[in-house]
Amino acid sequence: MTKPLYLDDLKIGLQLESPTFTVTEGDVRRFALEFDPQPFHLDESEAMRSIFGGLAASGWHTAAITMRLLTSGGLPLAGGIIGMSVQITWLKPVRPGDVLRVVSTVQDIKRSKSKRQGVATVMSETQDKFGGVAQRLLSKLLVTAREAETSSN
Amino acid sequence: MTKPLYLDDLKIGLQLESPTFTVTEGDVRRFALEFDPQPFHLDESEAMRSIFGGLAASGWHTAAITMRLLTSGGLPLAGGIIGMSVQITWLKPVRPGDVLRVVSTVQDIKRSKSKRQGVATVMSETQDKFGGVAQRLLSKLLVTAREAETSSN
Repeated sequence: MTKPLYLDDLKIGLQLESPTFTVTEGDVRRFALEFDPQPFHLDESEAMRSIFGGLAASGWHTAAITMRLLTSGGLPLAGGIIGMSVQITWLKPVRPGDVLRVVSTVQDIKRSKSKRQGVATVMSETQDKFGGVAQRLLSKLLVTAREAETSSN
Repeated sequence: MTKPLYLDDLKIGLQLESPTFTVTEGDVRRFALEFDPQPFHLDESEAMRSIFGGLAASGWHTAAITMRLLTSGGLPLAGGIIGMSVQITWLKPVRPGDVLRVVSTVQDIKRSKSKRQGVATVMSETQDKFGGVAQRLLSKLLVTAREAETSSN
């Protein structure tokens, strides 16, 4: 596990990789039952006849797993991972058995003038073990700056 | 519960309202433990000292509850709710005890030329019982068209 990163430690282009998480059929159905009980997330034969062509995790489940991977070392920010806004694109279905990993790249950094923090724009790709991208998540995150460095400016 | 809506039934400005869902402290902690185990989603005293000023649901939990409300009558689309991409903005924390409701407004409709479907852009606001907006979700959704109407064009 990497040392927590402050705003000052981020550079444009910095890339971070999460551990992996294996999605089970039980997970897919349990999440769907609670939050997205549509047939293509619950029933294999209905899913076969749908646009997904087989049982697929809810996109919101993929998003939640992505957050789990970001908080499990994928994006070790000192003040925590605090999103203000995000854009999500779902590119391919996540299936039971998929082994997911999140690769995040820092795209922009804006330090706030008045506060000891700033906003980082981070692109997080949720990939299967073959590198296929299931989800692209572009996040604007509130990131804590090192007080000492801020004071010396 | 409204009759399922096809692409042909959607008009720009059409507004739909979901049932309500009451968030419990147990829900907030359980979701956070599984997907977003950060102190401000788990521990009241840590949350008091954080930017949230008290226990707050994960934004991903708010998003998942929003989907639950959309699939529970909030957005009764004939082919199901199939998102291609979304933008989310989190405006205020969701707290245990909050009673959430989702108000969705159709913003744009694009019928595909070749297929019996189209893309609808829908803004869904997740509001507390005082009308305070906790989350704004702008979704591009794949929506099924009525075959008969498509054939007659």
